[in-house]
Amino acid sequence: MVRVLGIDPGLQRTGWGVIDLNDNHMRHVANGVVTSTQALSLAERLVQLYAGLTDIINQWEPDEAAVEETFVNKNPVSTLKLGQARGVALLAPARMGIPVTEYTPNAVKKTVVGAGHAAKQQVEMMVSTLLPGCKIAGADAADALAVAICHAQHAGNRAMMARYQNQNGGSAR
Amino acid sequence: MVRVLGIDPGLQRTGWGVIDLNDNHMRHVANGVVTSTQALSLAERLVQLYAGLTDIINQWEPDEAAVEETFVNKNPVSTLKLGQARGVALLAPARMGIPVTEYTPNAVKKTVVGAGHAAKQQVEMMVSTLLPGCKIAGADAADALAVAICHAQHAGNRAMMARYQNQNGGSAR
Repeated sequence: MVRVLGIDPGLQRTGWGVIDLNDNHMRHVANGVVTSTQALSLAERLVQLYAGLTDIINQWEPDEAAVEETFVNKNPVSTLKLGQARGVALLAPARMGIPVTEYTPNAVKKTVVGAGHAAKQQVEMMVSTLLPGCKIAGADAADALAVAICHAQHAGNRAMMARYQNQNGGSAR
Repeated sequence: MVRVLGIDPGLQRTGWGVIDLNDNHMRHVANGVVTSTQALSLAERLVQLYAGLTDIINQWEPDEAAVEETFVNKNPVSTLKLGQARGVALLAPARMGIPVTEYTPNAVKKTVVGAGHAAKQQVEMMVSTLLPGCKIAGADAADALAVAICHAQHAGNRAMMARYQNQNGGSAR
């Protein structure tokens, strides 16, 4: 069994989602959103974000983490803000020894919906279909679960490939 | 006495400089550069940056920190990279309970050189003049010392203003 934490970073709202992958079968574990207080300084908001993600990692103990690559906005001020939140979102699992993989939004959509340019609602609908019974805490949490699903899918493929190559006497690399 | 840590963030090279401010007199304490290994993943490089800054804070025990506001580049990919390093540079002191203030590059240059659009070499020369005898570990460390000087200057002004207002029966706020 592999437990995957997906993160969709943002300074205001960072979505997160945890799923279990068991022999190519996915199961929803938990999801939610970490928010920061707008009235605080940037440094203090980043501390909130870091603390929130650390709490989630301690509670759910994921084996691997997957983070959505930030969409490079045309507005450089927004890009910088996102970058700062993203730095903290990558740091939190990495400092706790959890391997972090990054996926572009297009790769996530392609894996989850089947098309690189899917709408937000399509992503949320497919996440609900792939993880039946899960209650999603909004669009950011849905995106985070989608990143986790994307990583699980890739991890599942890698494991299947390794099994196939082992059975056929090939290299497992 | 107030000890100030100045930081000039960058993913590849983060400059840092520590100075003491004693009754409007500045003294150089230490400066240097934290680097990250290009061959590692982004998350691992951010862990290196965080560890490096944490070590410096533990060693030199600053009371306050000042971070240069990242110049918003025209290249969004560079802006995002800088943002990620900057998020970690703000987080490290803030998580350790050290108040962090941000200054724009123009504010730093104006304070240190007297003009907002000074050249890199002018900044380094003025830092050497203001902190006599200090050996500067390159341009990034010089920029970090300049941010620290800028903060010290502002802190000195605030302290002077508070003294003046106290002596004259005004509010110290």
